[in-house]
Amino acid sequence: MLKRFIIIRYGEIGIKSPKVRIRFEKKLISNIKNSINGKVIREPGRIYLYPSDMEESLQLLSKIFGIVSFSPTVVTETNENTIKDTINVYLEELIEKGEFSPDKSFAVRCRRTGNHEFTSQEMGGLCGSVVVELTGAPVDLTNPEFELFVEIRDDKTYIFHQKIPGPGGLPVGTQGKVISLVSGGIDSPVATYLMLKRGCSVTIVNFNNHPYTSGSSEKILKIHKKLQEYSSGSPLKLYQVNYGDFLKKCKEEAPERMTCVLCKSGMYQIAGEIAKKEKALAIVDGSSMGQVASQTLPNILATRHSATIPILSPLIGLDKVEISKIGKKIGTFPISILPDSGCSAAPRHPETHAELERVLQTQEEIEMTSELKKVLSTLSEIHNE
Amino acid sequence: MLKRFIIIRYGEIGIKSPKVRIRFEKKLISNIKNSINGKVIREPGRIYLYPSDMEESLQLLSKIFGIVSFSPTVVTETNENTIKDTINVYLEELIEKGEFSPDKSFAVRCRRTGNHEFTSQEMGGLCGSVVVELTGAPVDLTNPEFELFVEIRDDKTYIFHQKIPGPGGLPVGTQGKVISLVSGGIDSPVATYLMLKRGCSVTIVNFNNHPYTSGSSEKILKIHKKLQEYSSGSPLKLYQVNYGDFLKKCKEEAPERMTCVLCKSGMYQIAGEIAKKEKALAIVDGSSMGQVASQTLPNILATRHSATIPILSPLIGLDKVEISKIGKKIGTFPISILPDSGCSAAPRHPETHAELERVLQTQEEIEMTSELKKVLSTLSEIHNE
Repeated sequence: MLKRFIIIRYGEIGIKSPKVRIRFEKKLISNIKNSINGKVIREPGRIYLYPSDMEESLQLLSKIFGIVSFSPTVVTETNENTIKDTINVYLEELIEKGEFSPDKSFAVRCRRTGNHEFTSQEMGGLCGSVVVELTGAPVDLTNPEFELFVEIRDDKTYIFHQKIPGPGGLPVGTQGKVISLVSGGIDSPVATYLMLKRGCSVTIVNFNNHPYTSGSSEKILKIHKKLQEYSSGSPLKLYQVNYGDFLKKCKEEAPERMTCVLCKSGMYQIAGEIAKKEKALAIVDGSSMGQVASQTLPNILATRHSATIPILSPLIGLDKVEISKIGKKIGTFPISILPDSGCSAAPRHPETHAELERVLQTQEEIEMTSELKKVLSTLSEIHNE
Repeated sequence: MLKRFIIIRYGEIGIKSPKVRIRFEKKLISNIKNSINGKVIREPGRIYLYPSDMEESLQLLSKIFGIVSFSPTVVTETNENTIKDTINVYLEELIEKGEFSPDKSFAVRCRRTGNHEFTSQEMGGLCGSVVVELTGAPVDLTNPEFELFVEIRDDKTYIFHQKIPGPGGLPVGTQGKVISLVSGGIDSPVATYLMLKRGCSVTIVNFNNHPYTSGSSEKILKIHKKLQEYSSGSPLKLYQVNYGDFLKKCKEEAPERMTCVLCKSGMYQIAGEIAKKEKALAIVDGSSMGQVASQTLPNILATRHSATIPILSPLIGLDKVEISKIGKKIGTFPISILPDSGCSAAPRHPETHAELERVLQTQEEIEMTSELKKVLSTLSEIHNE
C-alpha cells in the first residue's frame, strides 16, 4: 500500500504581513502538534503532516482553526514512469476500497512549479490516459464525479483526490486571551466557539446560581469538554464561582424587577477581575439583541457600564435559529437542551428598560463591590477530566 | 381570476410576554404599512395584507424583518362545495401559469380550528380527490413536488400553495437606536444589516478621510441606498464628518504607527457624541477579530477605552468568507468591491499591540478632545434621494 501523509492548506493567514504570517504559521504548527501524534513539516505556503493514525488525524484536523483544507496524499519522484506507476497503484487501491469505479466520470487537475521537460497540459493528458487505460472511465472536465489532483513541485509530485474543507478561522492562541461567560444554555457555548475560531485563547467562567438552580455542574462539564475539542490542543481553563448568595442579596435588598440586570452587571465585573488575574483583554458573552428581557439596548448599556474591559458579543446580530444551527454543527446544542431547572431567581417581570443612574444607585445600596469580592473568594478552577 | 391576498407569519415575536408581543406586532404592522401600499389586518398570531401590487409586495416582504414566512392566499366560505369549487379554479389558474402540472406528485395539507361537521383528515381527503379528479396527478404525502395548503378557521377557509421564507429577525424599531460606523468596505454594511435585522433603528455615520481618500461619497451613497431597503420603510439617517484634518494632526504629531489606533478611537468618540444627539444607546461597527492590524485584542481594548456607550461588533466572531457571503446575499458586496483609492493615512507598520496608557497619553498630547470638537463641527446630514 502507498504511504500516505496529509497536505494542510491555510488561508486567511496567507494575506498578512510576513512577520505576522510567520507567527501564525508557527502557532498553527504547534496547535497541530498539540492535537495530533505525528511529524509536521513546514513548506512555503503549506504544511505536511505524517500522522501515526490517519483516520483519527482527519477527524481532528477538521476542528483545528486556521486550516482551510487538507488532503491525504502520496508523493513520488517527478518522472513520467514513476508518476504513471504511482497513479496506477493509487487508483487500484481506491477501486479496491470502493472509492472509485470505472463508471464514474473523472478529470485530472495538474499543476506544476519548477522547470520540467513537459507542460502541465502534457502531464495532465498523460495522467488522464493512465486512468483511461486502467479503468476505461469517461473524462468530464466540467462536472466530473471524481477528481485526481497531480501537483508537481520541482522534483516531487503529489497525488491526491480529496480536498477536505477545514474549519477556517485563525489559529487558536494568535489573538490573545478572553474570558468567556458560559452557562448551560444554547448561546454562550456558540459564542465561545466563534471566538476560539477567530484565534482567541479562552478561559471559561461559569456562575453557579444554586439554590436558584439545581447547582449541578454536569451540563457545564459536558459543554466544557465539547468546547475543548475546538481549542486545538491547548487547555480550556474552566472556573466556577458561587453566585447564589449574591443573587439572594439582590432579591432581598434591590427592587425585584432589577434582579437580572444586577446579575448580568455582576457577571461582567467578576469576569473583569478574573481577566486581570488571567491577563485576558476582553470578556465574551452570548448576548443576542432582543432575544430575552435582559438583552435590550438600555439593559446592555446599564449592565456594561461598570465593565473595565471590552465585552464582545459575537451573537449580538444573530437569530436564535442561526445560533442553534451553529450549536448543532459543533455539537453543543444537544447538551444545551438537556433538561434543567432554569434560574428561579428571575422575576416574573424583569426590567427591560434599565436606567443607568438607578442601576448604579442600587449597586451602591446593596454594596455590590464588597458582595462581588465575596463571590470572587469562591472562585475555583475545575479540572474536568 | 381569484382575488389573492397575503398571509404573513411572524415567529420570534410569538414567544415574548403578551405586552412585548403586542408592541412588536404593532411595530411590524406599521413597518409593513410604511413599506407597502395596501390594507393590513391583524388576526391572532398572523397578519393579512391586501396589497395594491402583489408582485412588488412579495419582493418587499422578503426584506421586512420579523417576518418568518408569507403566502399568497385565496379565501372562501367553509363549505364543502365552495371549497371544492375554489380549489378547482385555484388549480386551473396555476396550471395555466405553468406552476402546476398533472405529472407532479402532490399532497394536501389540511389544518382546522373551530367546530365543523368534518375532521381535518376528511376535508384533506375531499380536497385531494378534487385535485385527482381535475388533474390525475399522483399523491405523495412524503416527498410531494407540490403542496396544497387548506387552512380552515371557523367559517373561513384559506387556500395557498407557497410558504415563502421571510428574513427572520425582529421588527426594525423595536430595539431602540444605534449609531453605525459605515465605510465603503465589505464589513460595516453587513454589520449594519445584522443590527437592523435584530430590530435596531440605525443612524449611519461615515467618516470622510479626504485628502487621504478620494473624498468621493459615491460608494457610501450607494451602500446607504442598499441598506435603506432593509430598514422597513423608516428613514436610515446618514451623517458624514470630515476626518482628514484630524488624521493629518495624528500623522504630524503622534507616533506614525499609532495613526490607525487614534483614528478608530476618534471614530468611537465622535459616534458617542452623535449618539447623545440622536438618543442612541450603542455604537455598531464592522470589527472582526484579527482580520486587520487594528483589530487585535490590545487595539480593541485601547480604542474602546474612551467610548461612553457600548460598542457592538456583530462580525467579531465571523471569517471574511462568511461576512462576504452575507454581503453578497444582501447586495452590498458588489458595491463594496468597487475600486477606490483606500486610505493613504494608514502607516506601513501600524500598531498591533497598542498600550492603553500610551494611547491615552498620546490622545492628550495631540489635544484629541478639542480636535474631535472641530471634527464634530463638520457634521452634516446627507439626504440621499
